[in-house]
Amino acid sequence: MGKKAVVLSSGGIDSTTAMAIARQEGYSIYSLSFFYGQRHRVELAAAKKIASVFGVQKHLVLNLDLKKIGGSALTAEIDVPKFRGQDRISKEIPVTYVPARNTIFLSCALGWAEVVGASDIYIGVNILDYSGYPDCRPEYIAAFERMANLATKAGVEGKMKFRIRTPLIGMTKAQIIQKGMELQIDYTLTHSCYDPDAEGLACGQCDSCILRRKGFEEAGVQDPTRYA
Amino acid sequence: MGKKAVVLSSGGIDSTTAMAIARQEGYSIYSLSFFYGQRHRVELAAAKKIASVFGVQKHLVLNLDLKKIGGSALTAEIDVPKFRGQDRISKEIPVTYVPARNTIFLSCALGWAEVVGASDIYIGVNILDYSGYPDCRPEYIAAFERMANLATKAGVEGKMKFRIRTPLIGMTKAQIIQKGMELQIDYTLTHSCYDPDAEGLACGQCDSCILRRKGFEEAGVQDPTRYA
Repeated sequence: MGKKAVVLSSGGIDSTTAMAIARQEGYSIYSLSFFYGQRHRVELAAAKKIASVFGVQKHLVLNLDLKKIGGSALTAEIDVPKFRGQDRISKEIPVTYVPARNTIFLSCALGWAEVVGASDIYIGVNILDYSGYPDCRPEYIAAFERMANLATKAGVEGKMKFRIRTPLIGMTKAQIIQKGMELQIDYTLTHSCYDPDAEGLACGQCDSCILRRKGFEEAGVQDPTRYA
Repeated sequence: MGKKAVVLSSGGIDSTTAMAIARQEGYSIYSLSFFYGQRHRVELAAAKKIASVFGVQKHLVLNLDLKKIGGSALTAEIDVPKFRGQDRISKEIPVTYVPARNTIFLSCALGWAEVVGASDIYIGVNILDYSGYPDCRPEYIAAFERMANLATKAGVEGKMKFRIRTPLIGMTKAQIIQKGMELQIDYTLTHSCYDPDAEGLACGQCDSCILRRKGFEEAGVQDPTRYA
């Protein structure tokens, strides 16, 4: 049978690197993506391709209408902030924060993990680049893990101990990319931009593009992204 | 402005009574229901009607395809167990358990609560009638609440302290119905059956019907349910 992991996959650098680490650690992989009304549907195409390249056991896409909940630039009618030539310096929680998003994603991952018999859930959060997101911090992850083991039949019956795995949590984007290069990830498969154009090309100016570009620079790796 | 609460509403006795308690406690109500591939879509019609009768601020229905996750008689192709004339005596977690369901529901409620500025989330769980469901127990609820305050921008910034309210947690179905009668709930609005017929009439034989019928009997209240 072998050990199984559910990996949250957004089609971006972080979740793809987390997936490569799960594979390296010997897990067979159940990748989970969401269509949640985000502007950048192109990320789902990336996630699907990545699942295929990684040869996952199963790739599941769940629809969640977070758009109805609102409250974020990623799902609502709020402009995605652009940083033309400036550094991204805000220490505030950005408007691209989606209320309770990681909690909702991890909860769905937990349900699926219980069904397929996966003890481990990988999520590619990191605190350095995204210090503004409360649901990327280790204390949050620990609290979720504790709750997860009280929430589930498998956890309560002692059949399974769920673990929320965050292998990237202390890494910079450059370190993540370096790790991914070691694991021979083809980053041309990945998509990061919050606000791609109609052809799926990256804007180069949103938070996510800036972090990605900076990551490749600092890692000394040529940026494979196609910018608009 | 007044204080606000998100109330998880399934259209059944428990969530409707929880809603009446929230109203009595002075909250303006944001009711939240889910279409999650359950067999009994008639419960959504009940939840909508209840929202209207209660005059809630807003009633939101989210689509969640838990059916894709599977693992439950309520969403998958497993027969809902019937107890013809027998007592429901199992102490095991029933096949109608939906993996991580309350966790997923509460997570979505948390996201919406953050957006609308509601500090309180009401959920009509109780441990007596549903001792088999791990995600109805007080230790689970406490762990969720703790996690919720670490997960959210509003929680972390100290703008809001989220509370998960479970006013029915220690009550029997009969006590819940008595409480509801005090609060003048019209229980003909509610729906409980896991496996209603095409016209929405209750089967009278599933777990949920048996608990409901027994509750009315023990409360000394005439059962208003229309059985098939």
